[in-house]
Amino acid sequence: MILEYDGTRYSGFQIQANSETIQSEVESALLKLTGEEIRIVGSGRTDSGVHALHQVVSFSTRSGIPVERYPYALNSVLPLDIRVVGSFLPEEGFHPRFSAVEKVYEYHMLTRQYPSALLRDRCWHLPHPLDTDAMRDAAERLSGTHDFGAFMASGSSVRDKVRHISISELYHQDDRLVYRVSANGFLYNMVRIIVGTLVHIGRGKAASSVIEEMLETGRRELGGKTAPPHGLYLVYVDYGEEPPRSSP
Amino acid sequence: MILEYDGTRYSGFQIQANSETIQSEVESALLKLTGEEIRIVGSGRTDSGVHALHQVVSFSTRSGIPVERYPYALNSVLPLDIRVVGSFLPEEGFHPRFSAVEKVYEYHMLTRQYPSALLRDRCWHLPHPLDTDAMRDAAERLSGTHDFGAFMASGSSVRDKVRHISISELYHQDDRLVYRVSANGFLYNMVRIIVGTLVHIGRGKAASSVIEEMLETGRRELGGKTAPPHGLYLVYVDYGEEPPRSSP
Repeated sequence: MILEYDGTRYSGFQIQANSETIQSEVESALLKLTGEEIRIVGSGRTDSGVHALHQVVSFSTRSGIPVERYPYALNSVLPLDIRVVGSFLPEEGFHPRFSAVEKVYEYHMLTRQYPSALLRDRCWHLPHPLDTDAMRDAAERLSGTHDFGAFMASGSSVRDKVRHISISELYHQDDRLVYRVSANGFLYNMVRIIVGTLVHIGRGKAASSVIEEMLETGRRELGGKTAPPHGLYLVYVDYGEEPPRSSP
Repeated sequence: MILEYDGTRYSGFQIQANSETIQSEVESALLKLTGEEIRIVGSGRTDSGVHALHQVVSFSTRSGIPVERYPYALNSVLPLDIRVVGSFLPEEGFHPRFSAVEKVYEYHMLTRQYPSALLRDRCWHLPHPLDTDAMRDAAERLSGTHDFGAFMASGSSVRDKVRHISISELYHQDDRLVYRVSANGFLYNMVRIIVGTLVHIGRGKAASSVIEEMLETGRRELGGKTAPPHGLYLVYVDYGEEPPRSSP
């Protein structure tokens, strides 16, 4: 299934004790619907406050509900800030995370003097002037295959930190400044550390060449602070030549 | 001052007993800030669930707080879904409602199969096919000076129902369908009845010529149902030749 969610009031995607998470809400809804204790698997975790326009999850069930009915059936029992926006019967062996060849994130910033009431949980408000040319230049320097160890939160146990970024661009959309990044995989907090570093550069606290320096040395401390979660959106997961098969 | 607000959790703009309203929140914030019981006057009321990007309010105070400090000072005590986004010292005799020469509203619709988690309180979700050409044609027929009595909620005591609509247009913006209307004044629920009628036409339940029929006969029942409040935004109030004077 494809999920859209507003991450504001959840403790992230992944199930955890005594917290409301996207996974726990969807599994509760599936229990109500099918009577089965179903475990869902997502294309990846999202942190508390992070949103998704297109999160892919899979599950197995003995229920006879037709695949194309799941959005309607689940949306009738899910909270309004989680919506099922598509459902497909996948190929044998499909895995939301391991079958993904590319994931796309967007990070939205609001670059105006005063904060916004309507976008309060949807954009990072940046009231001070930013050198967007330098930020755009820095964004471009991230493209390609690199060891992104300097763009990973400490505490992650991932060993192979080499990823390939195919798109890394910054553009204006109405009164928002949007960073869009597409890669074959992301390290923990990678997009938020990239954005924090772009803003660090935009504020003149580092030159855009700090990107190469970080990629070469792996030194996290050369970058900016991790950007807050509420500007981040998982916008697409691409399964390449073998997309989930549309329901018949 | 200029206010932006998310109307979702408020019982509209105007103060009323035992309800949280935009007015009551702003007046409470002014009391905290100045120690004075200040009454604010708005450019017009908005209903429960209706949003504003640019609501204009005025008030009198003996406080010595400089005009340009009000956004910062009030935003530090207001709830996050109400933000002050500008402040000005008006000309003598300025009145947010009576000095206004034009007001602009937008109504946002989401015309896709499945509902949206992120736009749940921001757009009217319309999953069924719409004849947007007919709707656009109908929107154009509303321009001009007319008696809009057929586009007013019953129960309103307004006598003069003649208004001048200078802009009445429908357009696509990303995956939203937006109706934008600018007029020298609006009757109670006028925009929501117009939009309900446009959707009625879009669904093929009436021809776009029903607009002239309604304008000529004043028969409310020829139109569609009143559109829900959460797609409506007050986007601008124009004071013509005498805009509020910027703070010195």
